[in-house]
Amino acid sequence: MGLHPAVAVVRQGVRRSLRFAEPGMTLLVACSGGADSMALLSATLFEGHKAGLRVVGATVDHGLQDGSGEHAARVVAQMASLGADETASSRVQVDPAGLGPEAAARRARYAVLEQLRAHFGAERVLLGHTRDDQAETVLLGLTRGSGARSLAGMRRSFDHYDRPLLDVARADTVAACLAEGIEFWDDPHNSDPGFTRVRVRQRVLPVLEAELGPGIAATLARTADQVRDDVEALDQIAQAWHDELVTAEGVPLLALHDLPRAVATRVLRLAALAAGARDAELFHVHVTALHQLAQGATSGEVQLPGHVTAYRDRSHLRFRPTAVSS
Amino acid sequence: MGLHPAVAVVRQGVRRSLRFAEPGMTLLVACSGGADSMALLSATLFEGHKAGLRVVGATVDHGLQDGSGEHAARVVAQMASLGADETASSRVQVDPAGLGPEAAARRARYAVLEQLRAHFGAERVLLGHTRDDQAETVLLGLTRGSGARSLAGMRRSFDHYDRPLLDVARADTVAACLAEGIEFWDDPHNSDPGFTRVRVRQRVLPVLEAELGPGIAATLARTADQVRDDVEALDQIAQAWHDELVTAEGVPLLALHDLPRAVATRVLRLAALAAGARDAELFHVHVTALHQLAQGATSGEVQLPGHVTAYRDRSHLRFRPTAVSS
Repeated sequence: MGLHPAVAVVRQGVRRSLRFAEPGMTLLVACSGGADSMALLSATLFEGHKAGLRVVGATVDHGLQDGSGEHAARVVAQMASLGADETASSRVQVDPAGLGPEAAARRARYAVLEQLRAHFGAERVLLGHTRDDQAETVLLGLTRGSGARSLAGMRRSFDHYDRPLLDVARADTVAACLAEGIEFWDDPHNSDPGFTRVRVRQRVLPVLEAELGPGIAATLARTADQVRDDVEALDQIAQAWHDELVTAEGVPLLALHDLPRAVATRVLRLAALAAGARDAELFHVHVTALHQLAQGATSGEVQLPGHVTAYRDRSHLRFRPTAVSS
Repeated sequence: MGLHPAVAVVRQGVRRSLRFAEPGMTLLVACSGGADSMALLSATLFEGHKAGLRVVGATVDHGLQDGSGEHAARVVAQMASLGADETASSRVQVDPAGLGPEAAARRARYAVLEQLRAHFGAERVLLGHTRDDQAETVLLGLTRGSGARSLAGMRRSFDHYDRPLLDVARADTVAACLAEGIEFWDDPHNSDPGFTRVRVRQRVLPVLEAELGPGIAATLARTADQVRDDVEALDQIAQAWHDELVTAEGVPLLALHDLPRAVATRVLRLAALAAGARDAELFHVHVTALHQLAQGATSGEVQLPGHVTAYRDRSHLRFRPTAVSS
């Protein structure tokens, strides 16, 4: 009896992620108990142990639902029964102040994973996001309308984190669990239409598939890869121009004028941040206003969040603290 | 009685488009007889005549439906009754060989518009595409999965062409026609679900609006503007690097290695085209293969459409004509 194709696909994703791993390294696999992360853990145990790695399974208990403690204990038992070298469960306090519930849970989850990573001395943390998660992220980004950046989706790797299943369909993680007899959990949050992401999954993507042809999730994920390359390149190019051009005098208008619009607006954004503007509140509309001022299409001043005022003289776009009336 | 808001919105779009027009200039407005183009013509006559411009209405008869000649004659009569300085109707031969029916009709339409532009000595040709057309174009592009380029949507201006209504909702062009008592035509093609664009309009966008919130068409159009800026900047930057780096020796690997991936892949694409690869068949997969070869991630040769072979030596990625076996 050969290897089930879905198991092979999941293992292939993990193998590619581990190509730079050295024997003796420790990996932490973040497990919710769902099919995605259980398939990821199983494949990582198989590929990791072959490569001489130590594999730790970790679950984060958000404490948001009744019985979440029991659930976490079940996930720990499952991780151990799959053969994890060590397991951990950690409870977080989700503080939704100022954030949506999804964003608050995400922030709390990463804080805990960072602690667990340090505790186990893990070089990398593996996350179970699939190609379908990526497609949903792209569509969610598209509806926010903040340009290419929001279409770029999730990165394959960042800091100590890797997403080995970003090319793997969610259906394949389910099939892999079934083929290997791994129990998995259906998070009720995953079918609560109160979450925009759930509506994208259950109502939007199926309509796209039906009307525009199958394979739309793969297409969206592929688009995200290319757009991410573009955004990273432009950010890098703009940073280099910012470092070369922008001084205490401000942004030189003549040099800025020679840059393509997508680079010039990014240089202006970086200059505004360096002058003290608040990142989280500096929106496209502010940067557009800076660009129009720099081009001479408007005159006067531009007020930026963080009490920064932009103005221009003959040669430069300049910034100063906004005068606060007492 | 004040100006109807929809009429004001359409006129505002036209006014912005005409801000560089000089008295005595001639504009050609392309009219299908639909609400979009009839509202555009009416607004262009109002704003254009105020600015001392000559406004020609032109309709293209694709000859694809029974009675298309009578339809074109009706559109000409309507354009004249609105006050167009001159009108024209021109019949095209649509040759769908090698193209889809939509693409073939588009190509034939632009060929005829170019002839009409020359005939009337028009400086600019105005097209009636709305914000909804733009949103549909972005979604269609997204499903093709060819990266940011396909998300960039329609340009506001290109060559001699302008799209003054790209920020105007289709519903506003209908309302403007109704408010001004202008008859317009519903093209049966616009509700034929055999066309992918019609399915996007009738089935996909309404679901997006319902599940993700209203205003999705405006959001998609705004995203297109930003992505277009990004793509144009990267194309311009890559062209400059190509001109600086690429010689008859090929593409120098060391210099290529220092470029961000999104720039490096574009430089390789330009180099492949310069070596004779066929643009229309040079896909992402080819460029990715070139990049992997240049990085040393693969070895051997890459076959490109247009009988071009790419290979590498120690210092360069090089191209040669593919040997054809006789």
